[in-house]
Amino acid sequence: MTRQRVTLGEVARHAGVSRTTASFVMTGRRDMRISADAEQRVLQAARELDYRPNLLAKSLRTNLSQTIGLISDVIATESFAGQLIRSSMTTALLHDHLLFVGESEGDPHLEQQLVRSMLDRGVGGFLYASLDTRQVQLPEILKSEPVVMLNCLDPGADVPAVIPDEETAGRVVAQALLDAGHTDGIHLIGETLHHVIAGAERYRGVVSKLEESGLQLAGQVSAMWWPEQSHSAVSRLLQQSPAPTALICMNDRVAFGAYQALSDAGLSVPEDVSVISFDDSDLAAWSRPGLTSIAIPHLELGRRATELLLRPAEQRAVHRVPMRLTRRGSVAAPR
Amino acid sequence: MTRQRVTLGEVARHAGVSRTTASFVMTGRRDMRISADAEQRVLQAARELDYRPNLLAKSLRTNLSQTIGLISDVIATESFAGQLIRSSMTTALLHDHLLFVGESEGDPHLEQQLVRSMLDRGVGGFLYASLDTRQVQLPEILKSEPVVMLNCLDPGADVPAVIPDEETAGRVVAQALLDAGHTDGIHLIGETLHHVIAGAERYRGVVSKLEESGLQLAGQVSAMWWPEQSHSAVSRLLQQSPAPTALICMNDRVAFGAYQALSDAGLSVPEDVSVISFDDSDLAAWSRPGLTSIAIPHLELGRRATELLLRPAEQRAVHRVPMRLTRRGSVAAPR
Repeated sequence: MTRQRVTLGEVARHAGVSRTTASFVMTGRRDMRISADAEQRVLQAARELDYRPNLLAKSLRTNLSQTIGLISDVIATESFAGQLIRSSMTTALLHDHLLFVGESEGDPHLEQQLVRSMLDRGVGGFLYASLDTRQVQLPEILKSEPVVMLNCLDPGADVPAVIPDEETAGRVVAQALLDAGHTDGIHLIGETLHHVIAGAERYRGVVSKLEESGLQLAGQVSAMWWPEQSHSAVSRLLQQSPAPTALICMNDRVAFGAYQALSDAGLSVPEDVSVISFDDSDLAAWSRPGLTSIAIPHLELGRRATELLLRPAEQRAVHRVPMRLTRRGSVAAPR
Repeated sequence: MTRQRVTLGEVARHAGVSRTTASFVMTGRRDMRISADAEQRVLQAARELDYRPNLLAKSLRTNLSQTIGLISDVIATESFAGQLIRSSMTTALLHDHLLFVGESEGDPHLEQQLVRSMLDRGVGGFLYASLDTRQVQLPEILKSEPVVMLNCLDPGADVPAVIPDEETAGRVVAQALLDAGHTDGIHLIGETLHHVIAGAERYRGVVSKLEESGLQLAGQVSAMWWPEQSHSAVSRLLQQSPAPTALICMNDRVAFGAYQALSDAGLSVPEDVSVISFDDSDLAAWSRPGLTSIAIPHLELGRRATELLLRPAEQRAVHRVPMRLTRRGSVAAPR
């Protein structure tokens, strides 16, 4: 199967000029004398025939096709992935590049196949993305290509990375509770494992901000990142005394489960217990009362990473993107 | 900027054979006599040098690069878009194709730019997708290209389309309430505008199934597709009498708002009011009690549409993909 395309020769014939003249006009060369009349005729012929310069021919010369590839572990869950793709695509387009997407599902063999297939099509650089902010291993095959890590880090690879400023976010969240008057009844709900950057750095930020005020967490309840686990964990916590005055939830899904557990126990948010969270997803806006939560800047992450890839003059470093707190109705003074 | 690649000539030199011999081995031609030893040496040289056939050269001959393009109105909201992309990408890869993604945000100019940029890179066919199941106008520029409409329809365009079987889903949802014993207290919450296929066809299915049992909807409350609007609409409905025995919500977000309104009114799901919904999103699984909801088959939609695009022998028709009901705890017999 082939597709026919309008050639430069056809444009030249249509305009009644030589192929060389047509070529000089279309490539904008001004070192040859071409009459204004001939130039006009070539441009008009190109318009009428819908002539497009042959990018594929250029690709064959350079092995590059003005495309970038996004290789991601998972793109099917959450709206976050859509936001990463959207902003990467839009930014690439501003630089006359298009975006391939490939989901590896964490399978190294599939990952390698995707990278090779993209290289075969002249992909000039890669965004290596993770849905969760975490440490990963950059695949060997990508180490010799232009690459920017998006929402993940490989401490062993010397490539730029763009991740959210999670530690500062932890400090902002703790400060919001301090401002409301909470002191010794603050509990943290969620995982803080080392390799999951989101959990580990949010935790470090919360603890360091509390320490500066001579305070500490009253407790930490381990719960995976899902509502059901959080519901169980918070239900158990509420049977102990003293009762918590505030819950810092490691994401909005965890907060969703916490809301349900508080409701089951006959407690009101924020009158009895304040709740604050990370993600600022739809769930935060839809909850009643609205959940105060700090946003993961997915659009900005995609934009920054794509800019870095297409303007590699910028330094090879870890770029941290600020997270912004949206205050809703879930934080108040303790009883 | 250019990228160096291993050439067939280098493979031939490395193997100590002529370029012609190397070419015959690499393209699998068996009409020339080549010694088993020479063949072995060529294949080993190709492996050692990591030689890849030049797809870009083939693209230049055919104007096709074994890629397809997904043009979508919005890919940033909901996890649905991620599922469409995932299954389209995976299916394309099974056919040795890669997937470009482009989001038009409904802007015809941007849409045209995306299509042209993809054609420049040898895209051989297009998936034209909408996030919501609805009627759209296929852009003029795509009418001369291989295209499959994904989760949308253009009654004026003679191209294949893949959409969920919404009308049957409406019948299944109504049947679930009839099976539980509901008769004259069933209300529908949501929009049923004509051009939004999801709303219009779900409504038609519900009404036709009820009519077959000599029943009809007790009422329909118009509410946009979001929790807040649904919360207001259902709160107003609950002030009237007789009270509803069951709510059919046009999606899970609408059901989410309905749950909140019922809770505010001191009513329990399903003891006081049954709730059933469309989407089967995370919200349905996370709600308490779990929400009985019928899934939009996003993965299957993407797979079928991509298959249709890459195997155009199949007929130009509207293909309807079945939707599956997940029963949780939100439907019971009326009081």
